[in-house]
Amino acid sequence: MIFVDKLVKKIKNKKSHIVIGLDPVIENFPKQFRSNISSLSSIGKKIWEFNKCVIDYTYDIVPAVKPQIAFYERYGIEGWIAFTKTVEYAKKKGLIVIEDAKRNDIGSTAIAYSDGHLGRVKIKDKSVPIFDVDALTVNPYLGSDGIMPFIKDVVKYNKGIFILVKTSNKSSFEFQDVLVNYKNKNIKFYELVAKLVNIWATYCTGDFGYSSVGVVVGATFPKEATKLRKILPKSYFLVPGFGVQGGRAEDMVRFFNPDGFGALISSSRGIIYSNLYDELEKGNKFDIAIRNSTLRMNESINAILSKNNLLHW
Amino acid sequence: MIFVDKLVKKIKNKKSHIVIGLDPVIENFPKQFRSNISSLSSIGKKIWEFNKCVIDYTYDIVPAVKPQIAFYERYGIEGWIAFTKTVEYAKKKGLIVIEDAKRNDIGSTAIAYSDGHLGRVKIKDKSVPIFDVDALTVNPYLGSDGIMPFIKDVVKYNKGIFILVKTSNKSSFEFQDVLVNYKNKNIKFYELVAKLVNIWATYCTGDFGYSSVGVVVGATFPKEATKLRKILPKSYFLVPGFGVQGGRAEDMVRFFNPDGFGALISSSRGIIYSNLYDELEKGNKFDIAIRNSTLRMNESINAILSKNNLLHW
Repeated sequence: MIFVDKLVKKIKNKKSHIVIGLDPVIENFPKQFRSNISSLSSIGKKIWEFNKCVIDYTYDIVPAVKPQIAFYERYGIEGWIAFTKTVEYAKKKGLIVIEDAKRNDIGSTAIAYSDGHLGRVKIKDKSVPIFDVDALTVNPYLGSDGIMPFIKDVVKYNKGIFILVKTSNKSSFEFQDVLVNYKNKNIKFYELVAKLVNIWATYCTGDFGYSSVGVVVGATFPKEATKLRKILPKSYFLVPGFGVQGGRAEDMVRFFNPDGFGALISSSRGIIYSNLYDELEKGNKFDIAIRNSTLRMNESINAILSKNNLLHW
Repeated sequence: MIFVDKLVKKIKNKKSHIVIGLDPVIENFPKQFRSNISSLSSIGKKIWEFNKCVIDYTYDIVPAVKPQIAFYERYGIEGWIAFTKTVEYAKKKGLIVIEDAKRNDIGSTAIAYSDGHLGRVKIKDKSVPIFDVDALTVNPYLGSDGIMPFIKDVVKYNKGIFILVKTSNKSSFEFQDVLVNYKNKNIKFYELVAKLVNIWATYCTGDFGYSSVGVVVGATFPKEATKLRKILPKSYFLVPGFGVQGGRAEDMVRFFNPDGFGALISSSRGIIYSNLYDELEKGNKFDIAIRNSTLRMNESINAILSKNNLLHW
């Protein structure tokens, strides 16, 4: 089954449009995950323990997790080991794993990235998967030479990519919002990127009408999302920036299609830190707290979709 | 000493404007590095052995090496171990290490990348370096929120960054060459990026008038280099795409400033594969072959600079 079909099915099964961002920041971990940290290897272990708990108490109520690789890479080899364990475990628990790595390069170098994250590497006569995540975020700045190697593996191995289009940060306007001339009309740069992505998206469309070539659109830009929804009807939107960064539940409807699908709202700090702490302060144990924190976000997204007649399980 | 001053001094000492790209591709290795490959760990070992030999036989005739992380990441943890060993060894041999990783993200995530590659991470009360390379390539698509965290560490730890401006690949025109309106003039998108980089470059200028905030400009675009040299007088140009990708020696003068500095020409496949094979076929052993291959490139760049009165040691 192709990636995007797997994703939509899981979303329907779990009745959740949420992806939990696994962005481990030791300093923000609840107390029980902060003891005995004296080496990189102990940090790696704590990250893995924390992620395992988050997965154990939420895997049945969300379709996917999104580890942000920077927070693992920061701790070197030990971080990569924690990442690998997390990916394996999340997949075993039936979760879709979207690696947020924003990788980008050209030709044989892009192939090397794709081999490692999505595809296979050759060892003698065997083809072996390495990180083997379900989907990867990629940066489009280098053009199609930098995207096609990933799309090849999307097709070959039923994987997905999410291409950065409009990012959630304040300064994203500096390059992404500049006006460019396109067929004698002025459009914004991110719209130009979206138009090219929409061509790439035709390579891998599934049973629900969506493509395994998705995009990243920040929750902080709902007006832009409305425009992008029109340019990119087939692409799934991976939407970071909800909650702590400023994205509001009532705006999320703009990221969805009329069929009630097409957007995967990501929350990292919201679920695994701030809401979690609220719950812990109420006296709940970690298992209940992380679950409540996730359910709360599920409910807020589903409520707003329902209010707009967009809840179509 | 700040990064760019270290770089210029090494260039002067070695009389070389070349950086050797350490892009390990097992299939292209000479025979002696291809025996007994039966596992990821043996691949990692071969990569490290190969890199060590390249460094051993060239460290006194080039200022820097540029490992492309994709070729290590492709092999997972074992690849990262080989990368770590390579970085440590190259630094021990007095080489500047430029990690080609094109990392990009925003806020706390960009900080996490910078911590791991350029800066330090906290373990209890200690601050510990992780990969600790001298410089890192970064992608500008996300704007200054994605660049400033790296620049902070450039200043704090005497490191360098090279920001993608005009990449060497054919399809780089798709986004990088679109016309944008800037102060009522039409300029190309990559020129807009360059103008912003030139502001960032002011943060860290050294004794030779150069900044530790450099740029990546493909050897395949000499006309664009002429324009960029004017926009970015203080930025060092990291120039990939020489040789195999199509960049010609006679065009390289356009990447330099009138002072005879300002460009670091990168060769990966040229030095470590194609020229190397020519030398091996002549009957030379690996040590002589890799050294000749490097000397040949040094000579071709220096000859063209000399011809244009740009050789100023």
